[in-house]
Amino acid sequence: MSETQLQPTVGKDLLGLSELSADQITTLLNTAESFLEVGTRTVKKVPALRGKTVVNLFFEPSTRTRTSFELAAKRLSADVLNINLGASSVVKGETLLDTARTIEAMSVDTVVIRHAASGAPGILARALSSHVINAGDGAHAHPTQGLLDMFTVRRAKGRLEGLNVVIVGDITHSRVARSNVVGFTRMGAHVRLVAPPTMIPPGIETLAREPGTVTVGHDLDAALDGADVVMALRLQLERQGAPLFPGKREYASRYGLNRARLAAAGPDTLAMHPGPINRGVEIDADVADGGNSTILDQVTNGVAVRMAVLYHYSGGGGQA
Amino acid sequence: MSETQLQPTVGKDLLGLSELSADQITTLLNTAESFLEVGTRTVKKVPALRGKTVVNLFFEPSTRTRTSFELAAKRLSADVLNINLGASSVVKGETLLDTARTIEAMSVDTVVIRHAASGAPGILARALSSHVINAGDGAHAHPTQGLLDMFTVRRAKGRLEGLNVVIVGDITHSRVARSNVVGFTRMGAHVRLVAPPTMIPPGIETLAREPGTVTVGHDLDAALDGADVVMALRLQLERQGAPLFPGKREYASRYGLNRARLAAAGPDTLAMHPGPINRGVEIDADVADGGNSTILDQVTNGVAVRMAVLYHYSGGGGQA
Amino acid sequence: MSETQLQPTVGKDLLGLSELSADQITTLLNTAESFLEVGTRTVKKVPALRGKTVVNLFFEPSTRTRTSFELAAKRLSADVLNINLGASSVVKGETLLDTARTIEAMSVDTVVIRHAASGAPGILARALSSHVINAGDGAHAHPTQGLLDMFTVRRAKGRLEGLNVVIVGDITHSRVARSNVVGFTRMGAHVRLVAPPTMIPPGIETLAREPGTVTVGHDLDAALDGADVVMALRLQLERQGAPLFPGKREYASRYGLNRARLAAAGPDTLAMHPGPINRGVEIDADVADGGNSTILDQVTNGVAVRMAVLYHYSGGGGQA
Repeated sequence: MSETQLQPTVGKDLLGLSELSADQITTLLNTAESFLEVGTRTVKKVPALRGKTVVNLFFEPSTRTRTSFELAAKRLSADVLNINLGASSVVKGETLLDTARTIEAMSVDTVVIRHAASGAPGILARALSSHVINAGDGAHAHPTQGLLDMFTVRRAKGRLEGLNVVIVGDITHSRVARSNVVGFTRMGAHVRLVAPPTMIPPGIETLAREPGTVTVGHDLDAALDGADVVMALRLQLERQGAPLFPGKREYASRYGLNRARLAAAGPDTLAMHPGPINRGVEIDADVADGGNSTILDQVTNGVAVRMAVLYHYSGGGGQA
Repeated sequence: MSETQLQPTVGKDLLGLSELSADQITTLLNTAESFLEVGTRTVKKVPALRGKTVVNLFFEPSTRTRTSFELAAKRLSADVLNINLGASSVVKGETLLDTARTIEAMSVDTVVIRHAASGAPGILARALSSHVINAGDGAHAHPTQGLLDMFTVRRAKGRLEGLNVVIVGDITHSRVARSNVVGFTRMGAHVRLVAPPTMIPPGIETLAREPGTVTVGHDLDAALDGADVVMALRLQLERQGAPLFPGKREYASRYGLNRARLAAAGPDTLAMHPGPINRGVEIDADVADGGNSTILDQVTNGVAVRMAVLYHYSGGGGQA
Repeated sequence: MSETQLQPTVGKDLLGLSELSADQITTLLNTAESFLEVGTRTVKKVPALRGKTVVNLFFEPSTRTRTSFELAAKRLSADVLNINLGASSVVKGETLLDTARTIEAMSVDTVVIRHAASGAPGILARALSSHVINAGDGAHAHPTQGLLDMFTVRRAKGRLEGLNVVIVGDITHSRVARSNVVGFTRMGAHVRLVAPPTMIPPGIETLAREPGTVTVGHDLDAALDGADVVMALRLQLERQGAPLFPGKREYASRYGLNRARLAAAGPDTLAMHPGPINRGVEIDADVADGGNSTILDQVTNGVAVRMAVLYHYSGGGGQA
């Protein structure tokens, strides 16, 4: 990997996509492209981060994202530690910062953090000299998910600029939606957000710094017209207090991604979902398993994107 | 390891021993023999699976089997991921197949699965192109336990053919018993199953394809006559609903393996147990810790056998 | 690392510091010194224990100590397995010894054990041929904590002999205090124990084999006079049954380490704490984060000291 290819360099931490320029996002996606090939080799391993230490510091349970980061780090030959808190030091009353400083003091290069509180990774990033990667914080951001979604679309469509991307679901509670709004609009795409009125916060359009790139609506069928991509969000019933919608069946009928809707959008419209999916609720099984679905590609690409992120944010060659 | 030694090749998945021929079982046991030596080296590691990814996908808690597979994979230089479900994605309502497809999409070579439902590994094996190894499914099968038991007996007795193997305990709930019945009879041994009437299912003899190789009885002392091997099953009190036996003391007196019974069987009769043992219930302490006990050998051999299984079922040299 | 540097050799197991001579402690601290540098490298890894297997067998939850041992083992290139018991085999009723023998039978070189019962590591050590390292047992001992505390003081002060070390807090329940009393006095330091009368066991002075090296008192301010080091113990509220003190505020006012007390002790007095800290209870934030605090150094040094311990107690070069 040449020095030139890695320019421009990224910052110390990856807290959200709003801090990245289009060129920096392109750098990360290009690096991911080169790492995607590693997953197809007989020996799925490169020595890029040998002797580096990556800690997965998860304050919320997550199999999918933790596994993806763990595999990414191992394929780069880093040493990886998983710390799932809730039982241990946190029970003993230690503060987030003391926990993080303790981990850093063990000469850790990169801390990957997931936390229920928006902003927790930012607090860490300011306090630590280790690199901090946000693996999802509250409803704030999930930047590696945004990157892997853009990477998946770029591979399928050959570009991001000028695409129409529909995101449908509980926008209010979705850090996935926020990171995708910021990322796709930064790369020149247009995002249409669709949700029931109870699931979309006022002023969400202002997330995108590029004016006029986000529209908001409540009618999925209208929004799908001319859509290149439609991304169904998980209905996170476990996160909601008072129900925001009458029921799953009603939700599916108005906001569920089914075959008829996808066909109406166009023959090449991509069907995306960050997973895990609720079949028959926000996405129908024949769409999830169909030819336009990118759901498993997103998982495969997620490892490559996280390899790229760890590579650039672990004091590897990308910052030299 | 020569190509010749590895012939005949095994299939894509290891779901149960009934799918293996005697030649294939011999291939696996011979490979295990060569890996057993690795555990005695100062550097207990070979590069056979470097850059391969093995996932331990455990839907039931297990320290013993998970640890054995994890060590086996690490000694082959594979990257290993442990996923213990129950808390994470499963709580979010994802189906078994979606979970497995997600893991496979991360370019995983081999999925080692333990599940409370008989047949779960088979469902995965049909859906995935990754290799699937059954680490125990319900009361159905536990093929690596069967292989390590045969390996242990073959090392101690020099052969399997013609041996008399007694298996005593709760046959109904035992995947260990089923895999051993299938494996030992396939290799030419005779199996005598002994249990209280409430702990043995009708027609269990038909598990063995080789006619006349399995007998069923309720009298342990009678069955021990001329036995080369006696394997006590764990009394899995935690799995039973209504009690199948009056009590532990009664069980021990009629079906427990004690010194007198072992002596009556013969001076060289092996005392086996898959562990963990209930001392004083299905096996007495002086038998478990005595000179005829193979209990710790089974553990040591288990790592070597699982190295052999991972080697053959991870796209390693064994299938080239 | 030369053979000479590693003399004198240590024993098979590390159960407590009382079994080590001053020369052996010096050997371990000197080895740690050479490993400390590894944590500052770009490639934080040495091949010293490649192909060795280290098992972290934790019967009590611990993020801090487990992580430190795991990192230490990985930086020495050992294979590490984490076994957190409570859910698995222990639930199935297996005894401690059977669990340990099973782990050893997997050809494990070193077992790192934490257990709520004082003496559990000693039971294992006598039964196993694997090396056993005590990572904390009840209120008995925490030898690697003692070593890392001595290492930290030796680095800061250039020596241990003749120093005055104050340890303040709940001495009764503290394995950290016990290991530090034994270690520091063995190395020629004087230890002053300070606690409320309810938190100090009678006869604690006899822990030190060197007569006259330990004094006991209840007045922190008096004890701080001329102190080179003051170590505040964690107020382990979660371990106490009936409360041993009226309240946190009362405790802080009489036994808390604050700026005024530290200043009165002297400008170069070190402020230590084994972590995790209760800010404002046993130590004030401005002391914990101040220039005399060694809290994060202790964490950094802990990894180096555990590398040294694993190196000497894993059949590595230190015993050749």
